Amino acid sequence: MGSASDNEALIPACEMLDKFGIPYEKAIISAHRTPDWLFEWAQGAESRGLMVIIAAAGAAAALPGMVAALTLVPVLGVPLPATALNGVDALLSIVQMPAGVPVGTLAIGKPGATNAAILAAEIIGVRHPEVRERIRDWRAQRAAAARDVKVP
Amino acid sequence: MGSASDNEALIPACEMLDKFGIPYEKAIISAHRTPDWLFEWAQGAESRGLMVIIAAAGAAAALPGMVAALTLVPVLGVPLPATALNGVDALLSIVQMPAGVPVGTLAIGKPGATNAAILAAEIIGVRHPEVRERIRDWRAQRAAAARDVKVP
Amino acid sequence: MGSASDNEALIPACEMLDKFGIPYEKAIISAHRTPDWLFEWAQGAESRGLMVIIAAAGAAAALPGMVAALTLVPVLGVPLPATALNGVDALLSIVQMPAGVPVGTLAIGKPGATNAAILAAEIIGVRHPEVRERIRDWRAQRAAAARDVKVP
Amino acid sequence: MGSASDNEALIPACEMLDKFGIPYEKAIISAHRTPDWLFEWAQGAESRGLMVIIAAAGAAAALPGMVAALTLVPVLGVPLPATALNGVDALLSIVQMPAGVPVGTLAIGKPGATNAAILAAEIIGVRHPEVRERIRDWRAQRAAAARDVKVP
Amino acid sequence: MGSASDNEALIPACEMLDKFGIPYEKAIISAHRTPDWLFEWAQGAESRGLMVIIAAAGAAAALPGMVAALTLVPVLGVPLPATALNGVDALLSIVQMPAGVPVGTLAIGKPGATNAAILAAEIIGVRHPEVRERIRDWRAQRAAAARDVKVP
Amino acid sequence: MGSASDNEALIPACEMLDKFGIPYEKAIISAHRTPDWLFEWAQGAESRGLMVIIAAAGAAAALPGMVAALTLVPVLGVPLPATALNGVDALLSIVQMPAGVPVGTLAIGKPGATNAAILAAEIIGVRHPEVRERIRDWRAQRAAAARDVKVP
Amino acid sequence: MGSASDNEALIPACEMLDKFGIPYEKAIISAHRTPDWLFEWAQGAESRGLMVIIAAAGAAAALPGMVAALTLVPVLGVPLPATALNGVDALLSIVQMPAGVPVGTLAIGKPGATNAAILAAEIIGVRHPEVRERIRDWRAQRAAAARDVKVP
Amino acid sequence: MGSASDNEALIPACEMLDKFGIPYEKAIISAHRTPDWLFEWAQGAESRGLMVIIAAAGAAAALPGMVAALTLVPVLGVPLPATALNGVDALLSIVQMPAGVPVGTLAIGKPGATNAAILAAEIIGVRHPEVRERIRDWRAQRAAAARDVKVP
Repeated sequence: MGSASDNEALIPACEMLDKFGIPYEKAIISAHRTPDWLFEWAQGAESRGLMVIIAAAGAAAALPGMVAALTLVPVLGVPLPATALNGVDALLSIVQMPAGVPVGTLAIGKPGATNAAILAAEIIGVRHPEVRERIRDWRAQRAAAARDVKVP
Repeated sequence: MGSASDNEALIPACEMLDKFGIPYEKAIISAHRTPDWLFEWAQGAESRGLMVIIAAAGAAAALPGMVAALTLVPVLGVPLPATALNGVDALLSIVQMPAGVPVGTLAIGKPGATNAAILAAEIIGVRHPEVRERIRDWRAQRAAAARDVKVP
Repeated sequence: MGSASDNEALIPACEMLDKFGIPYEKAIISAHRTPDWLFEWAQGAESRGLMVIIAAAGAAAALPGMVAALTLVPVLGVPLPATALNGVDALLSIVQMPAGVPVGTLAIGKPGATNAAILAAEIIGVRHPEVRERIRDWRAQRAAAARDVKVP
Repeated sequence: MGSASDNEALIPACEMLDKFGIPYEKAIISAHRTPDWLFEWAQGAESRGLMVIIAAAGAAAALPGMVAALTLVPVLGVPLPATALNGVDALLSIVQMPAGVPVGTLAIGKPGATNAAILAAEIIGVRHPEVRERIRDWRAQRAAAARDVKVP
Repeated sequence: MGSASDNEALIPACEMLDKFGIPYEKAIISAHRTPDWLFEWAQGAESRGLMVIIAAAGAAAALPGMVAALTLVPVLGVPLPATALNGVDALLSIVQMPAGVPVGTLAIGKPGATNAAILAAEIIGVRHPEVRERIRDWRAQRAAAARDVKVP
Repeated sequence: MGSASDNEALIPACEMLDKFGIPYEKAIISAHRTPDWLFEWAQGAESRGLMVIIAAAGAAAALPGMVAALTLVPVLGVPLPATALNGVDALLSIVQMPAGVPVGTLAIGKPGATNAAILAAEIIGVRHPEVRERIRDWRAQRAAAARDVKVP
Repeated sequence: MGSASDNEALIPACEMLDKFGIPYEKAIISAHRTPDWLFEWAQGAESRGLMVIIAAAGAAAALPGMVAALTLVPVLGVPLPATALNGVDALLSIVQMPAGVPVGTLAIGKPGATNAAILAAEIIGVRHPEVRERIRDWRAQRAAAARDVKVP
Repeated sequence: MGSASDNEALIPACEMLDKFGIPYEKAIISAHRTPDWLFEWAQGAESRGLMVIIAAAGAAAALPGMVAALTLVPVLGVPLPATALNGVDALLSIVQMPAGVPVGTLAIGKPGATNAAILAAEIIGVRHPEVRERIRDWRAQRAAAARDVKVP
């Protein structure tokens, strides 16, 4: 995440990763305030064994794209509503990457953070079938629960 | 893709997949015109051995989200500029997925199609290191070429 | 409706239908979380005797369009302000349907829910003149009341 | 339609109505340039036996809403891209109706015009089952054709 | 104004008219809920001696444009933030009038209401020099006061 | 107008003024490039006998607002589509004036220019009844012609 | 700043200038309410020895552009969220200056005010190396602090 | 600039710098394709004696912000219309920088490029009075020419 104030929006992502039994590291790294650290962190991601990176940032959110420029680990971006523009700035700064450097972008804010964790799990599931089975179980439970909701 | 008219925008995606030696199937399936086929196709994706799905669509683009609702294979979405709104409608219809069903969204149009293919390759690279190495080579060549461009 | 949290926005729609003496069924069905159920529900709508369907959803609102793809019963869509984009995402996801599968879209939120109920009544009034007469009475009362309002 | 220049956008609507064997009257009436005529035309719609009204207009498109204020016949609105804002102005002027006077709004431009005709046919189909059957046949043919399209 | 709920936004307009000694009538007339009354009211505006009309409305704000279509008295429009779109819908519904029927549009909400009153006074000042002189005095006082503000 | 390139958009305004027999002066004055001249021109408007001012400009269009700040003659603003934002920038720069200094804003581009001329004529008609009668004749002819248009 | 109500947004700018030891004058001058004073103030800026000007304003924010038109001192603009449009109007009114009169524009609201002060310091640092060194120290401390933040 | 295709938009900037006798270096450096080179280039800017940096880029334009993060030389950003969003994405990616790292942003496209050169000259003029005098002469000539333009 780009700032300590982004942490709250990422809590649902962490909960989701915990639910799927996926270990993760969590860091506050700003593309603009700590560019050196960003370089070091992103260029070392592959050798640290990271399988997916979730980068969340608000405003002119350069973090996801810069991470994607510095590693071959798939990068997912979560635009956060940190300014008067309520996340539209972050969405366009993350999703409109030029050809060559992709960031898989999720929805603005908490729904996007939740979904970034699920998509990360699906990506890990490409290699680890047991992770995919955990998502399958969770989805089945959720669908069953949805059919049991009493219409008010 | 959602319509035959979307094919041109996806040519750079196919070229990129070819470059990385990744085989793929290509289908025109509309969430709105052929919903039965969509169900059948998406629910069979996992058993057909697909590792990633790229879903491109314009207008009120329901295709990527519906595919994501029907499979555990990671889904990448490419919004296409098919209407008077020039892709803004497709972008929001794809990226603003509610919590629970993620679509990793790329940029509007051809840059997004190209990037969907690269991100798909990165995801496959999580499991197949040789694919990751091909992306590494391509990136290195591209960066070298970029430094050789003569400034006009 | 796509989610239990959408219920409050739909209360004025239910009140309006009650006022016009129109019976209705009410269900929470998510295009993305319970796609199977959506198929089953929408494909059975005609044989259950539904004359109009009101589908309300927020975010990347695929529900109205998918229902419209699966039935010949007229579908009215109500975009709900469920995200940081305050309903613009839902509006475009519902109204910008591609040629072939129409959704008659109403305003964002409660005014749209109210109007969906009235338009549903007008559509039923095409076949049942007594429903049209009830709308006529209600409109006349409302117009008379409007002329009696004291300007503050 | 609000202006003679809107006619081209409505050709696909007429073709669709012809395909479903639905007779129609076609008029150019401007809410702003010929308000008296609008009143007369809309207030007589019911007694002329119209079952649905399709109102298409661009810019600050008051036509669909004013027609809806003057009749109990269901009104469908088609926003046209007649200005520098490419139809966004017409879309908001048509869809954002206040509670009490509904307009079922379709997409901007030709796709919306086509869909207005199909939705009109679905509404007529609530009363005339043979019209619904014609839509069913057309949909089935279209879906079959869609599955036969050769992927380029 | 189009609705009793618009009254609060118009209080600064009334205060401004009072300040300039301009008498006015105030009415709640909805283009969509009371179209007959609108016709009657607007077509009689000239003979009642109105010199300018200020029409304020929110949502798909047809009121200012319809009034302008029915009278030769200059019409000023004030878009009100009555919906999830915060006045953007009303702004475009009022300002984007097609060629032939002008509405002089002011800013969204209270600043626009205040300015509608001042512009109305300026227009009346074209005929009544004493009104212009009152505006001149007010402006001079305001400018003098502005230079006396202590910078915090 | 703010620039010589704005002239073409203003031709319909001039034609309309000619039609109503209203003499006018026409000037190219930029708020940003010739601020001194703007001051001189606007502050002299009243003593030169101008009854209304039409100020058209594109981009960050400061011209209408600055003229309005410098005179008590009513100012009408026409936003022109001079940039990549197609007139949205000019529209907001003109219509969103702060309380105290009004600009009656018309639609973007040529329709707005035409309407500025008509509104100017209506304002002059507040003082000169013969001008109002010319607008009345023109409107009646236009409405009659509108009813004679053959529907294609 | 354009209004006394803008003061709060500018507090972080003042704090930043104080931190870098840069003296400044602070004034409330409205382009629209006190145009004469604006002229006088801006045309005297150079001779008063100002090295950079920070102009902050909301709504149709003409202040930064008009100041830039009247001086050769570099002008930085800060758009403030003073209206229903939350600063989008001010942003476009400030950044979309026509060729010839530049305003270096910062983000909407407080982040933009802070950054205006830092950019002003960087510009002064072009001439006064000791100011640049103070920014260098501040940046180094901030980066060090950023690396010490405990991830929650 | 971020890409060779950006060169055309920057020609007016170069012409303007030539006019003011300001020498410059010109480079094509992509934040996303050549991040290492960007670091090297930006971190060496100060020691190479650059007094101002103009960074132009389109799409999710990270270049200006990343350069600003890596140097204390003032950075001006020019958003280019390289995508379906016509520069809105680049504008928000450049102007909405978080507090701490400023980029002085100019208008979208060629007007912004021209103005970046003039603002750069004004900044250099803070240290080199002869550059300021050249801008003064150019402005005076331009204003004189503007007053001589024949109104068509």
